[in-house]
Amino acid sequence: MSALETLIGELARLPGVGRKTAQRLAYHLLQQPRDRMLALATALQVVAEKVHPCDSCGQPTESLDCDICTDPRRDDSLLCVVEEPSAVVSLERAGAFRGRYLVLGGRLSPLDGIGPEALRIGLLERRLAGGLVREVILATNASLEGEATATYLQQLLGSYPTVKISRLARGLPVGGELEYVDGITLSHALTAREEL
Amino acid sequence: MSALETLIGELARLPGVGRKTAQRLAYHLLQQPRDRMLALATALQVVAEKVHPCDSCGQPTESLDCDICTDPRRDDSLLCVVEEPSAVVSLERAGAFRGRYLVLGGRLSPLDGIGPEALRIGLLERRLAGGLVREVILATNASLEGEATATYLQQLLGSYPTVKISRLARGLPVGGELEYVDGITLSHALTAREEL
Repeated sequence: MSALETLIGELARLPGVGRKTAQRLAYHLLQQPRDRMLALATALQVVAEKVHPCDSCGQPTESLDCDICTDPRRDDSLLCVVEEPSAVVSLERAGAFRGRYLVLGGRLSPLDGIGPEALRIGLLERRLAGGLVREVILATNASLEGEATATYLQQLLGSYPTVKISRLARGLPVGGELEYVDGITLSHALTAREEL
Repeated sequence: MSALETLIGELARLPGVGRKTAQRLAYHLLQQPRDRMLALATALQVVAEKVHPCDSCGQPTESLDCDICTDPRRDDSLLCVVEEPSAVVSLERAGAFRGRYLVLGGRLSPLDGIGPEALRIGLLERRLAGGLVREVILATNASLEGEATATYLQQLLGSYPTVKISRLARGLPVGGELEYVDGITLSHALTAREEL
């Protein structure tokens, strides 16, 4: 196999990148100055060598503990549990949360053979055993698997009676129109209506 | 800037990859075993170091001359002129052409400052000076710029009166790019090429 075919094959392994897109990407890279291709190669190598999950929360980091875990101004009593690192990025961009995070590294999915042992449940229990956490916010996705994961965690957290458990509110997205919101969301928004 | 941010920045430079997609790709790579990321890095490095345009046709190759140029079974009298290497891949996949290629490396585009000097016109003239070529098939894209490039080449080739000039049949959909045309249409366009 030629070097170019090898590269196309590697690019085609990326999610959402088919054979044709991989070929287009490879030829695009060939048309760039060589140091552009090497810069991407180096960036990949550095990430592969230096980035690992944070010991305290599972978020990718280059240090032993991540920036959020080592930030002294954040509230230790609030722990927000998410599925993936990208959720932390979204929540931080929203800027509405000043507590700590725990990244599970996935969601329960029995059909794909993903059980609790594949998630950072042990790390979550260690955080709770620390005694600082007063509230756990279950911020898993609003998908079927995300809900199942939240339900599992809710049962697990029953053995910490002093810890409050909450989850992100379900309801209308801001700017959303009733006409286009699905029935389940609408039912929930109605049931959980807020008194004004 | 963190290693992960650097990687996301590099990925976001790829065509059709926005910031959000770059982030998704980076987090996907992080979830894979580290040797997957290193395999991609190595593939990029090998291509950057070893792949260069073929001396005879401009097609990317790891040798001095590419597989097609050194294949003794191909017809030296037929020269197919294309814009990009991906067009050679498409034509070879269609399997209807047994001559040689010349990859211009782009198309005339005065608005983008791309004139004849940016294309492999000198290499084309050298091929014609060799005296083996009896017919030049202009297989530029059926876009405005591809047509302009073909017209320019047609005028240039007027100084080789013994060389027949043809172009791909008008079977190509207007505005279509070779890379995305199906093999049957491409074969037909090649067989029904029109003499100019």
